[in-house]
Amino acid sequence: MDSPVQTSTLHLDRPFRLDSGDIIRGLTVAYETYGEPNSARDNAILIEHALSGSAHAAFFHRGDPKPGWWDAMIGPGKAFDTDRYFVICSNVLGGCNGTSGPSSRNPATGKPYALSFPPVSIRDMVEVQRMLLAHLGIERLRSIAGGSMGGMQALQFFADYPSLFDSFICIASTMRHSAQQIAFNEVGRRAVMADPRWNGGDYYGDVPPEGGLSVARMIGHITYISEKMMQEKFGRLRKGKDDRAVFRPSFEVEHYLDYQGIAFVRRFDANSYLYITSAIDNFDLVSSISGANRCRGENRARGTGIDAMRKKKGLVISFTSDWLYPTQQSHDIVRFFSGLNASVSFAEIETDHGHDAFLTDIEGQTLIIRSFLDALIP
Amino acid sequence: MDSPVQTSTLHLDRPFRLDSGDIIRGLTVAYETYGEPNSARDNAILIEHALSGSAHAAFFHRGDPKPGWWDAMIGPGKAFDTDRYFVICSNVLGGCNGTSGPSSRNPATGKPYALSFPPVSIRDMVEVQRMLLAHLGIERLRSIAGGSMGGMQALQFFADYPSLFDSFICIASTMRHSAQQIAFNEVGRRAVMADPRWNGGDYYGDVPPEGGLSVARMIGHITYISEKMMQEKFGRLRKGKDDRAVFRPSFEVEHYLDYQGIAFVRRFDANSYLYITSAIDNFDLVSSISGANRCRGENRARGTGIDAMRKKKGLVISFTSDWLYPTQQSHDIVRFFSGLNASVSFAEIETDHGHDAFLTDIEGQTLIIRSFLDALIP
Repeated sequence: MDSPVQTSTLHLDRPFRLDSGDIIRGLTVAYETYGEPNSARDNAILIEHALSGSAHAAFFHRGDPKPGWWDAMIGPGKAFDTDRYFVICSNVLGGCNGTSGPSSRNPATGKPYALSFPPVSIRDMVEVQRMLLAHLGIERLRSIAGGSMGGMQALQFFADYPSLFDSFICIASTMRHSAQQIAFNEVGRRAVMADPRWNGGDYYGDVPPEGGLSVARMIGHITYISEKMMQEKFGRLRKGKDDRAVFRPSFEVEHYLDYQGIAFVRRFDANSYLYITSAIDNFDLVSSISGANRCRGENRARGTGIDAMRKKKGLVISFTSDWLYPTQQSHDIVRFFSGLNASVSFAEIETDHGHDAFLTDIEGQTLIIRSFLDALIP
Repeated sequence: MDSPVQTSTLHLDRPFRLDSGDIIRGLTVAYETYGEPNSARDNAILIEHALSGSAHAAFFHRGDPKPGWWDAMIGPGKAFDTDRYFVICSNVLGGCNGTSGPSSRNPATGKPYALSFPPVSIRDMVEVQRMLLAHLGIERLRSIAGGSMGGMQALQFFADYPSLFDSFICIASTMRHSAQQIAFNEVGRRAVMADPRWNGGDYYGDVPPEGGLSVARMIGHITYISEKMMQEKFGRLRKGKDDRAVFRPSFEVEHYLDYQGIAFVRRFDANSYLYITSAIDNFDLVSSISGANRCRGENRARGTGIDAMRKKKGLVISFTSDWLYPTQQSHDIVRFFSGLNASVSFAEIETDHGHDAFLTDIEGQTLIIRSFLDALIP
């Protein structure tokens, strides 16, 4: 596909009600699509992005040499084959890449929401996508797929509306965060909030809390790659002069983290970081579809939802060296959905790339996902 | 021992030369001793503290209900039995608990050194302790022992002056940091330096960079305890109201980290944190005693130092759930000193307490250390 893609925007006229009861007016949703719907309109696949992703999952924007964040997986002949599937991706609620979030203008005040933007949940994110699907005239999807937080959205959306999807694909993710996973996110949030420039979230039009957000991202990057890969790539190699007197980066691994931090603050909003990581930490699939929290989705009407899960298929993928979302958490997902009578396949991919493997280990994922999708064809 | 201990201070009249060639004038060393030297003055054991420790390793200070940081290990009948051994502990160079460091007054200016304090190394720390031993009239020690950074000092001191010690005890430590270990420290340093109150290190007399230092400590605490223990202790338990709108701590693990961060900034200097973590990252035992870096110690005069290691004993201890200093790094220590003809024992203690086990798992360590020390008796 040589012609560039563009991000489209859906404006929702009516107020959007969150799971908490809060209301967002003037909601906008940024999205992209790749490939075409077939005549039966049953070949759509919804792609869910991770913490720092965007609607721009594949192909190129005009004048931008960098393709979308999962371009290696989405396109003609790729894992999500755009010659066969109509692929949709949207930016999450609470984000900062076109969908409403804390940096968006509050129509009631004309100023950015900042912390007056209501807290959002993973369920809120997928409810926004349900509006988008309705707008696109898609009533049934072949699959919903994502890695990391994208996997959480896939699980939540599939569990809430099993009749909407033939299948789900959940990669390097979990049904809920452990204490350590919460801890890493919390330290990132504290780093942002400890930066005086954060100013209670009210920094728009001023210098944003770049120092704090950069530290948060550095912490993230330690958890995204494996200890082994970090050692092989950097070890104790040094770069430049050892300027310990002023504590400038001296080891290559320090330069790497420094670069990752700086690159991130250029493209991401600090408040969105707080909102989205909180949504991740609060995500708890089992309690969300079984407990008092339930207030959305068809399972509520249908009771257990077990009937709706029959004949549905799931694919769960983990990576051997992913220590942020270890394989055990993927086993838990398989067990849970199998218990709901879905037919769930599991694959663990051998890799040294850690959590980032969902973005980098293309060949293994492509083989598994292609054959999984092929087997869905009625 | 009911009578309280006091911290003593040694003032060095002559200039102290660091490994780098830098000079510190008016060096002070804070230290404590427990037990008494025997008549042969050959029953001393030097205790080395970790990153945030102090000279106050055991017993009580007058009016302080909290004992020293390793009181469970040092005392009559304990692992380091003060009825039999003369135990010495001093605050490290670069620290902030009585020994000269960046918060000390520079005699040349009358103001705190801040970043004009010269960068220090683990070797510099032990050279300061060599002056202290001379001051105390101790020419030969039964052992030198420490956990974490304390273990690094024990290894460096023992390797530089093997004829000074009968043995070393190295707990939960390493001969050098891996890329991931450097990465965690570097993110902590960035957190401190990203806080505008750090002000290039020049914050004395003003509000210190508490936010940044607190974030650094929170990162540390995630690595100090095991994932399993964190999960069992906190899981997804909540404390107080879930106040997501302002991103206050809601999960118990968040409150725990928050508390650890706040407690730390009350007792520790942010610049010392930078100096000491840099010394840790730059520590590389093998290259320090074999390469061009060598400029101290008796090995320099004696060549390989292998002769001096004969009849010397070492004890290396690791903990199964310590993911900050994993057992493999202890194996490397055993292999290295065995290769130098020292006789090195190794014990891995089964525990869920992670790296902190060197402070908490008293029974296992006591059994192993007591029998190791008993076997040293000539």
